[in-house]
Amino acid sequence: MAELNLDHIASRLEGLEETIIHRLIDRAQWCVNEVAYAHGQSGFANEDLRSLFELRLWHHEEMDAKFGRFCIPEERPFSGGLPAPRRAVNIPETGLHIKDFDEVNFTGAVLASYRLLLHKICRPGDDGQYGSSVEHDVYAVQAIARRLHYGALYVAESKYQGDVGGYRKLIEKKDREALLEKLTRKEVEDKIIARVKEKVRQVQAKINKEVRVEVKSESIIVYYKDFLIPMTKQGQVIYLLNREPD
Amino acid sequence: MAELNLDHIASRLEGLEETIIHRLIDRAQWCVNEVAYAHGQSGFANEDLRSLFELRLWHHEEMDAKFGRFCIPEERPFSGGLPAPRRAVNIPETGLHIKDFDEVNFTGAVLASYRLLLHKICRPGDDGQYGSSVEHDVYAVQAIARRLHYGALYVAESKYQGDVGGYRKLIEKKDREALLEKLTRKEVEDKIIARVKEKVRQVQAKINKEVRVEVKSESIIVYYKDFLIPMTKQGQVIYLLNREPD
Repeated sequence: MAELNLDHIASRLEGLEETIIHRLIDRAQWCVNEVAYAHGQSGFANEDLRSLFELRLWHHEEMDAKFGRFCIPEERPFSGGLPAPRRAVNIPETGLHIKDFDEVNFTGAVLASYRLLLHKICRPGDDGQYGSSVEHDVYAVQAIARRLHYGALYVAESKYQGDVGGYRKLIEKKDREALLEKLTRKEVEDKIIARVKEKVRQVQAKINKEVRVEVKSESIIVYYKDFLIPMTKQGQVIYLLNREPD
Repeated sequence: MAELNLDHIASRLEGLEETIIHRLIDRAQWCVNEVAYAHGQSGFANEDLRSLFELRLWHHEEMDAKFGRFCIPEERPFSGGLPAPRRAVNIPETGLHIKDFDEVNFTGAVLASYRLLLHKICRPGDDGQYGSSVEHDVYAVQAIARRLHYGALYVAESKYQGDVGGYRKLIEKKDREALLEKLTRKEVEDKIIARVKEKVRQVQAKINKEVRVEVKSESIIVYYKDFLIPMTKQGQVIYLLNREPD
């Protein structure tokens, strides 16, 4: 089926990577603004625990849940206890074979890595623009999580289809290291890194630096190398270990 | 004050225009999807009237209102009856002199013009991706409205400061046509159009056309020429007619 064709998947991943780049550049227009991530400092009445960022993420996901976002395999929620969809969402056959998509949910890792990334792409300090910062944080972490989970679920299934016997043997042995090695494609990873680097440069080639903050391609590349690519592969391993036998 | 310095305002407008371009390109990745704008076809239970787009806009603005978005002069809401902010928002002195920012609220015109624009930038037809379409519609109309209201409020006040006597005379006569003529800067408009054209081209220069839908710069330029620029000037006239005497 088309959803599991490797060319189709590579195209989707490339499209998702444009969104990540745009969202990170958008967020970088504001300072780090640590206060927005501090517990009990949201400024919300009767809200002693959550940070402004946590509140924004919760409210956004609560809305998204009603609209059915999390029916889509690659849209894994950051929050628990979300409401059921209020509309029927038409999900085409995914071709995935896993009981619960949330068995592959790496949103906790996305949040932790994103907080570190902010210090690489944003100017340090505080410009008071907390509302705009957390609004764009939500767009950015959703774009990152979408790419990670899409790559984990669909790439794993596609590779599995390419060598059912080989993967089945390693899955039965629960051999995580051998699975990781088998699904690694170093040349594809290098191609992604090179493309991301060129795109970050290209998208900002003609910006007016007095108006827009520029994001160095290095910070986004390191994020891909150290987090997004390895974590996607971890997600593929988890998918395979949870994949239902044919 | 810095907020009313024309160079500062021009920079802000340029930044806001990048956001509009990105948001429109994002939305164009999906088909027109007329069903998402049809009343009574949202698929939401117990929701006979509003379209999926109207519901998404309402829910998004309800969240935004709680976070204090509409305390900002250029963030004018599309919806009425929104809740009060749940946090104290720190608004620096704006330098604007108008009793109620909503005296300049052109969101109705933004919605009407945007629906027409969709047919210019999106492929015709239906791809079933209604949730994604309306999510990106909200980001796009907010970006357009922000630019329009920012340009209306701050540019008008700045021009007023440049010739208080001249403007005051026309305001007292309520002479809309003379006000419109006085605040028009044809050479600035031409510069904006040329810059938008170049940016739409540049941002998409290296896209993979098998992955991303390309938006023709012509559609966005026509939108600027026929709607955004003239409507911003109408907003400036309204601001001036409602401006409090010094």
